[in-house]
Amino acid sequence: MNIKIEKLIKQFAKLPRVGTRAATRIVLNLLQDKNGKAQILADTLSDAISSIHSCPICGVLTDGNVCEYCSDSTRNNGQLCIVRDLSDVLVLEKSGVFHGRYHVLGGNLSGVAGITPDDLNINGIKDRISTEHISEIIFALPNTIEGKTTQQYIMSIIHGDNIVFSELASGVPLGGDLDYIDDGTLTLAFGGRKKL
Amino acid sequence: MNIKIEKLIKQFAKLPRVGTRAATRIVLNLLQDKNGKAQILADTLSDAISSIHSCPICGVLTDGNVCEYCSDSTRNNGQLCIVRDLSDVLVLEKSGVFHGRYHVLGGNLSGVAGITPDDLNINGIKDRISTEHISEIIFALPNTIEGKTTQQYIMSIIHGDNIVFSELASGVPLGGDLDYIDDGTLTLAFGGRKKL
Repeated sequence: MNIKIEKLIKQFAKLPRVGTRAATRIVLNLLQDKNGKAQILADTLSDAISSIHSCPICGVLTDGNVCEYCSDSTRNNGQLCIVRDLSDVLVLEKSGVFHGRYHVLGGNLSGVAGITPDDLNINGIKDRISTEHISEIIFALPNTIEGKTTQQYIMSIIHGDNIVFSELASGVPLGGDLDYIDDGTLTLAFGGRKKL
Repeated sequence: MNIKIEKLIKQFAKLPRVGTRAATRIVLNLLQDKNGKAQILADTLSDAISSIHSCPICGVLTDGNVCEYCSDSTRNNGQLCIVRDLSDVLVLEKSGVFHGRYHVLGGNLSGVAGITPDDLNINGIKDRISTEHISEIIFALPNTIEGKTTQQYIMSIIHGDNIVFSELASGVPLGGDLDYIDDGTLTLAFGGRKKL
């Protein structure tokens, strides 16, 4: 095959959940498209690369000085939700369940993967507590060893008299059939059972 | 979400077998990558767009005047394999089963989709028969109504005394369990049974 096409397939194959087979299909589709789909994609991508960066306050991707959440004064309600990734912000926003500010860590502490506090966007949290008058920190981190370790670490470095810490509830998902729930989740759901 | 990121997600979601969910994952991965994956992809894509075009002889994508197959004199063996798409060429090349020249139609005739002979790369075939001394035309088109219609149409417009027409054999695939073979394939396999 042509070497430039091969190079392009290799780049597409590096995208998440895209293998060589799917990348080949994508590249052939792009290069044979008669409506200039490839050029539009290249232009949109270049435009995004040159203008999109992380919000200096919370870490959400934006093309402004600060992101849409940090610049929204109605969101300054004293609640700060700490998430791992931008994709978690999108999920929470789609659900409409949270109306405060976000803080994106960019990962979780992990001994195995060698991710230390310096690799994460943790330092800014302390400053935000005073400047944004944060009264509650809500951890919406993954319910994994790494997520819980990260949560513990952040709680250990933040000392504020008036800060309430909370985390998302663990338990059986809505519509969840007990047959399909793993033992760990069942244990958490039993431990956190509610009186009726 | 940021409007530029949304625009980029929409473009990625237009790629084959990539939905909005996968496109979102791809875009967030690209824009948050610290090794410049997004820039490399944009550059590789732009480079391909500006240099890749269809081979004027056979329709295969290339960045040269003619493609690697048409410029390879050892492939001028009198065999011309007619395929629908470039992806079919790649499959045949990977198998190593064919060593002649290709002709890519860019589609199949289809009344439903409104694809007429003018939409396909058919006209060049006649010229190639004389200039490349073609003695056999092998149809490697999809085993569908559209593929067979296209094959019949091409045979009807090519009049050459010394041209042999052939098509790929139909039947049970290697390792194919009869339980899982459809009736149409079984009928073809019975009709084309070989004496032992």
